[in-house]
Amino acid sequence: MPFEPDTLVYNDAGLIPAIAQDCETGEVLMMAWMNAESVQRTLATGRVTYWSRSRQAFWVKGESSGHVQALVEFRFDCDRDCVLVTVRQTGPACHTNRRSCFYTAVRDGSEFELMAPEG
Amino acid sequence: MPFEPDTLVYNDAGLIPAIAQDCETGEVLMMAWMNAESVQRTLATGRVTYWSRSRQAFWVKGESSGHVQALVEFRFDCDRDCVLVTVRQTGPACHTNRRSCFYTAVRDGSEFELMAPEG
Repeated sequence: MPFEPDTLVYNDAGLIPAIAQDCETGEVLMMAWMNAESVQRTLATGRVTYWSRSRQAFWVKGESSGHVQALVEFRFDCDRDCVLVTVRQTGPACHTNRRSCFYTAVRDGSEFELMAPEG
Repeated sequence: MPFEPDTLVYNDAGLIPAIAQDCETGEVLMMAWMNAESVQRTLATGRVTYWSRSRQAFWVKGESSGHVQALVEFRFDCDRDCVLVTVRQTGPACHTNRRSCFYTAVRDGSEFELMAPEG
């Protein structure tokens, strides 16, 4: 069945959450948002392209930092309202220079930092 | 630093996306939503508890199906606006009886089913 980006389910702002996972380690790197054209561009270019809600602009991940995400596989879920991209991540995914944005855990009721920024 | 659920960043509906990842395989199983009390209940009970937007009610994952998610680790991201729970998943996570909700990939412009429902 041919895939059409507009058959995914977007929220009132026209956005769908997109989870990025490292294709080698399985680590969940980040979550950001896409619109239908981000989806189309990601598939067409093989470079993961989000929609920046703060800048209201396309956000080719790594465009300025060099920390690009090469698309390995594009998936979506049973309700068609969430995307999962497996990626080959260059450098850290997080703007804090950590490998993953999910670097804080809650343990025994306290916040615990799991990883330090890369050098 | 003590963790308080209301220090996470919720959307206008009071919800935060929560990604569930299998603690053993690293597989991304599903994405659903939590409110501050879901977060609190998840941490207090060790059973992953979402907020069902369709039913407008707490949704203790597996409550009716038996396909529970035991919390292994609770994390949140750099912007505090997305949760990642690593879980010990009993049975399939998806309501279609597939291991993961992300069972459809896009390959060469077509939808491709990656896994079948479990027996």
